[in-house]
Amino acid sequence: MGDRPVRAVPLPAGHADIRHNNLAVVLRVLAVHGAGSRAGIAARTGLGPSTVSRLVGELIELGLVQEAGTDHTRRAGRPATLLEFDGRHVLALGAEINVDYLAVVGTDLANRTVYEAQVAFDAVAAGPDRSAAALARLCRQAITAVASRPQPRPLVVSGLAVAVPGLVDAASGVVTEAPNLHWRQVPFGAALSTQPGLAGVDITVANDANLGALAEYRIGAWAGTPNLVYVTGEVGIGGGIIVGGQPLLGARGRGGEIGHMNLDPAGPPCGCGRRGCWEALIGLGALLRAAGTRPLASPGGTGPMAPETKAASIAARARGGDERILAAFRELGHWVGTGCANLVNIFDPQVIILGGFFRQIAEWILPPARASLEAGVLAPGAGGCELAISSLGFTAAARGGALHVADQVLANPARPAGAAEDVLRRG
Amino acid sequence: MGDRPVRAVPLPAGHADIRHNNLAVVLRVLAVHGAGSRAGIAARTGLGPSTVSRLVGELIELGLVQEAGTDHTRRAGRPATLLEFDGRHVLALGAEINVDYLAVVGTDLANRTVYEAQVAFDAVAAGPDRSAAALARLCRQAITAVASRPQPRPLVVSGLAVAVPGLVDAASGVVTEAPNLHWRQVPFGAALSTQPGLAGVDITVANDANLGALAEYRIGAWAGTPNLVYVTGEVGIGGGIIVGGQPLLGARGRGGEIGHMNLDPAGPPCGCGRRGCWEALIGLGALLRAAGTRPLASPGGTGPMAPETKAASIAARARGGDERILAAFRELGHWVGTGCANLVNIFDPQVIILGGFFRQIAEWILPPARASLEAGVLAPGAGGCELAISSLGFTAAARGGALHVADQVLANPARPAGAAEDVLRRG
Repeated sequence: MGDRPVRAVPLPAGHADIRHNNLAVVLRVLAVHGAGSRAGIAARTGLGPSTVSRLVGELIELGLVQEAGTDHTRRAGRPATLLEFDGRHVLALGAEINVDYLAVVGTDLANRTVYEAQVAFDAVAAGPDRSAAALARLCRQAITAVASRPQPRPLVVSGLAVAVPGLVDAASGVVTEAPNLHWRQVPFGAALSTQPGLAGVDITVANDANLGALAEYRIGAWAGTPNLVYVTGEVGIGGGIIVGGQPLLGARGRGGEIGHMNLDPAGPPCGCGRRGCWEALIGLGALLRAAGTRPLASPGGTGPMAPETKAASIAARARGGDERILAAFRELGHWVGTGCANLVNIFDPQVIILGGFFRQIAEWILPPARASLEAGVLAPGAGGCELAISSLGFTAAARGGALHVADQVLANPARPAGAAEDVLRRG
Repeated sequence: MGDRPVRAVPLPAGHADIRHNNLAVVLRVLAVHGAGSRAGIAARTGLGPSTVSRLVGELIELGLVQEAGTDHTRRAGRPATLLEFDGRHVLALGAEINVDYLAVVGTDLANRTVYEAQVAFDAVAAGPDRSAAALARLCRQAITAVASRPQPRPLVVSGLAVAVPGLVDAASGVVTEAPNLHWRQVPFGAALSTQPGLAGVDITVANDANLGALAEYRIGAWAGTPNLVYVTGEVGIGGGIIVGGQPLLGARGRGGEIGHMNLDPAGPPCGCGRRGCWEALIGLGALLRAAGTRPLASPGGTGPMAPETKAASIAARARGGDERILAAFRELGHWVGTGCANLVNIFDPQVIILGGFFRQIAEWILPPARASLEAGVLAPGAGGCELAISSLGFTAAARGGALHVADQVLANPARPAGAAEDVLRRG
């Protein structure tokens, strides 16, 4: 976080807006530049000293800033009180629902992870309502666990952002199209908000790949790279794309559906009903099919199986020299590279980051993928683009959700947030 | 131009920079908001009255601003002198070299077209040096023609931007990769700058599709649309992409090579040496091949033939009911729609604009293209994206070049520009 500058926010119109904006500016100065005095904040922001004092008072009241000793480095005048960004008692929740798992990540406002859980889950069989109930239970467990730890002040839940593998209408929280979940026009945000344990919590629903790309751009191994493409590796293949440091969302928030690039008219059928989509060629379903494994349930029929377990069992067979698996990896790697070549020709990014299960099979697929990437890019040397594996794995989207929630608090420190005690009591 | 706001330019560091920046701000206020007084400019820019007077004096000296009568609408004080943006004596040149034609467009600083020419030209046979010579001749004809007209003051040539169908290193003017011209690592900017008639003229070399997209975004039928994809329709297929109102250039300026999206591993060979690129399926070469026509020369071997002539002759055969041509149009339309579906899934734009020869065959290809687009997009109703035909046709890239040059003058009004008389004398 240290290198990102404090961004100039366009000045809003009304008085309440100006106050919110100034609160955000002061908070961001402390979050980005570290501890400082009231006078230092005034110098950095151009706000008057009395305004800064009032804003700092409000932020202390909200528990987002605390006094942290005295600055003895000053030459003249009396020593100033240092202020530092706090936010350890604020819980930002990010979660993900995918075809075969649920995940939740809790962080404080400084993006320190305080809770993490992932469970295998058959979301297709469960359907939207039971999925909402299961995800809410997971979130409630997170709140309970974090709230029970010793805290300097009572825990506050600042919001929940849920990643979904499909097209989402951000304003309404409706999942308009999620082929692999078999969901269409599902008001998932509304379904979550009525669950016990989430009443009163601010809920955002967003595309999994976009949240994953946010996590890669902020806390991944390639953080800060202005042009990057993040490719989810699940049953579905989605894309989160950063262009010139900005997320590519498109006219209606539906950008990045790279999994439905048509790459081969004679290719296998896709979950979306078409043929030869990239997802049908490189998604987890394609790998399991090539390996001769049942696509979604565990081999023994003992309930759902997390995707890394599936990928790990296939990787074990490859390590044992299973020629069928090794051939499947070569074919999959070739298609990974071919689709990535299209993306390099289109976006000219510094890096394409492969997420999810690609991590577990990287040693076999990267060599053929890099060869096909180089063969397919117009510029020599694959256009200088690196093909990398995510360091965040299956939790990227949930981590991106928590980052999104924490960002919202920084942008509007005075937005309402529920005391964890109240949230749990209502549950 | 009326609706675009005056953009805040980040304040540069040095004193000379600040002066340039302030000159640009004053000029842009007059160019965008129309005539105004010195006091009005001071009010809009926040610059002091004496600074504004000095800057206006410099701009009058440069011939970019002129006095235009007196403002009698003022209630109090003495009537103010109105100032207006001028630039009728400034020639911005945009040009294009493509596989089978050369084009040049001259505009004044207010983007009024003052010269336009296009000639059939076999750039592959000519090679880089003779191409540079031919293009320079065309530019010299433009300068001579415009300079010979009655002018309020002597004509000034503010620069030349040349569109090339390939990857360009913007800083050096080197064409790194232009498969359809068979050029690789060609220092075309340097070759142009040593031509008689272009000595001393500031020369930019840029990708044709990016300049075409600039023209569409600024003066086309869909001007101002924040998310648009422009598809060139020549022998080559390139993409100029606007994302959130900004051009997508990529990490090294090589973005937008949508013509080399691989769409069919069993597809026809492409000029780039690969198979099944979009360009090989929908470019002018594909159409001519399907029509059984020789790809580049005229049927009678009487020299080069402009692409619209080729497309028009094929359209005439379609109008006459030639079933081979009609089948070729259906196939080409299908592939146009399939590639556009990939672009809609990735970019979620408001519109995809087809340029070049697509205009002449639109009535046959649009229906199958729209059907395949709708079938290939994940979101229903083709994701709400329109498929449109460019109103700028084959001159889009050259017009974009002239816009680029005019923009550079607005951004830095004090940059050196050659008197046309001197440019021609040196020739």
